[in-house]
Amino acid sequence: MSNKRIGITLGCPVGIGPEIILQYFHSLSKNIEYEPIVIGDIGVLSQTASHLSITIDFSDWHPGESLPRRKIPVFNVSKLDATQISWGKPNKETGQAMASYIEAAVQLEKHKAIDAITTCPISKYALQQAGYSFPGHTEMLAELTTTKKFTMMMAGEKLRVILVTIHCSLKEAINSLNTAAVIEQIQLTHSSLMHDFALDNPRIAVAGLNPHSGEDGLFGNEEAKIIAPAIAYCQQQGINATGPFPPDTVFYQASQGKFDTVVCMYHDQGLIPFKLIHFNDGVNVTLGLPLVRTSVDHGTAYDIAGQGIASSESLAAAVGLAAQIASNREKNIH
Amino acid sequence: MSNKRIGITLGCPVGIGPEIILQYFHSLSKNIEYEPIVIGDIGVLSQTASHLSITIDFSDWHPGESLPRRKIPVFNVSKLDATQISWGKPNKETGQAMASYIEAAVQLEKHKAIDAITTCPISKYALQQAGYSFPGHTEMLAELTTTKKFTMMMAGEKLRVILVTIHCSLKEAINSLNTAAVIEQIQLTHSSLMHDFALDNPRIAVAGLNPHSGEDGLFGNEEAKIIAPAIAYCQQQGINATGPFPPDTVFYQASQGKFDTVVCMYHDQGLIPFKLIHFNDGVNVTLGLPLVRTSVDHGTAYDIAGQGIASSESLAAAVGLAAQIASNREKNIH
Repeated sequence: MSNKRIGITLGCPVGIGPEIILQYFHSLSKNIEYEPIVIGDIGVLSQTASHLSITIDFSDWHPGESLPRRKIPVFNVSKLDATQISWGKPNKETGQAMASYIEAAVQLEKHKAIDAITTCPISKYALQQAGYSFPGHTEMLAELTTTKKFTMMMAGEKLRVILVTIHCSLKEAINSLNTAAVIEQIQLTHSSLMHDFALDNPRIAVAGLNPHSGEDGLFGNEEAKIIAPAIAYCQQQGINATGPFPPDTVFYQASQGKFDTVVCMYHDQGLIPFKLIHFNDGVNVTLGLPLVRTSVDHGTAYDIAGQGIASSESLAAAVGLAAQIASNREKNIH
Repeated sequence: MSNKRIGITLGCPVGIGPEIILQYFHSLSKNIEYEPIVIGDIGVLSQTASHLSITIDFSDWHPGESLPRRKIPVFNVSKLDATQISWGKPNKETGQAMASYIEAAVQLEKHKAIDAITTCPISKYALQQAGYSFPGHTEMLAELTTTKKFTMMMAGEKLRVILVTIHCSLKEAINSLNTAAVIEQIQLTHSSLMHDFALDNPRIAVAGLNPHSGEDGLFGNEEAKIIAPAIAYCQQQGINATGPFPPDTVFYQASQGKFDTVVCMYHDQGLIPFKLIHFNDGVNVTLGLPLVRTSVDHGTAYDIAGQGIASSESLAAAVGLAAQIASNREKNIH
């Protein structure tokens, strides 16, 4: 197995992307078994390094070239006027540059110049400024790779969660919950745990929606009507999915090693326990894409951009997991 | 300050109450600064000790008497035929005995023979068998003490949570959420943190209902319509309540010491993070009662009763917290 090459997109140039990338490379161990490169803008990175008094060199890397020593390899996609950078204030130019890093990453992966993509944060607002209508990163990557079924997994050492409903009100989450959606999430999870995480017969816990998982219909019937049929269907397909489990204990059990992932019915059901354990080192993995993509588990943090106080812990975890997944996928092919 | 005397009710005699009490006294440090006594049935405890091969003596304690050394003091309320005990199978007699321990505890507290009550688990089914219609322990204690406004706090070293809605479907929780209920919970929390937990100007975080706390109305408007007005009202009363905060980060912040308690909108919002951190050592505290009452954070566990495998960790934490609260309340009076 050769070292995997991970393309790290710079994200929004006026967010915390540039500074966490600098921090990440600055604290990078020499013994890592993968090769990170940046897809972004050398000028912006140089300016950020200078602004934060970080001494580090950059190398203008091109596909096919070997990696430089003691320099950050950068595939230089944009040529923003770095002296004009205003932290926390995206405009049309920074938005277009931000989108171009993602497009370049997909092209590099397509031509096998990189093995996986780790993305630094972008913002919906900056995308809109640039004239894109995607609600976010993941939808843009799905369109660039013509992917229909995809989902987001939040992954950490102790807990992995998948969300059946995401960015909507809690009321809408309940109203929109349906058996087909639960089945799709279980299937995507099963496939990813097998191929991306190299787990045999992965143990998927499915959470109920209501307290005590409805307590036999006393506190709601979505478990019996919607969730249990989805689990039964997946079990018939040979998937080791069980539940619906009482939400207030299943995450503890999963964190203790009883399950490999918990499929959650709504945003906070999964993200409250996930962020409680993995606030700093959580990774966002997109399941269902033909390419390997992980992402930091935080936003552009415009309010602190340029101050050098953002943590690169999530980025380090995201790059490491991308390399691991790329390696696991390769094992499956051979 | 004199040592506080804590009355531990036996709970359901055929649940795990007797065995966790034996375990608790068995592993009790000699240096504790409070005096636990059991309110229950010596015959049941002796039979349980014999069944589990635990060598321990009991003393038939009466109010006003000093405590025995190296024996478990028991205020002997019932005289069940212990040889007829069938673990996990409550009947009319065990149900009535179970209820009588609670009634006796309230009487002992009223006459100052004990300073606080810690309750071992009972079951709704056993209460019904005995002819009581209370949905649970807390409601029975509220009636015995003529208390109208009360609530349950889940308390641990790292996190305390309060629930605005509890045992109902998630849909009903959303539909029944109202400003008056949020205000009542914040007020009960504030008062308890001041008097029971001896905190000056306690920092109360109020969670939102929706993902990202509604993201300015994009994912629901309960934050603006229901929760924010309750917080504003309480702030006008001088209560240090803030929010509504995004649910997926507020518990992490509270666990890191930023808040003293989180007021939660629904059962799992509070219990998912609480049980993730305090699965074994969580304590249930009833706020609003004139007497001090804590409870173990688990049920009768009929499925494992009599096997000696139940943990007494939550009971130990509950007795310790009861003593602390009784002591804090005394300080406020003097």
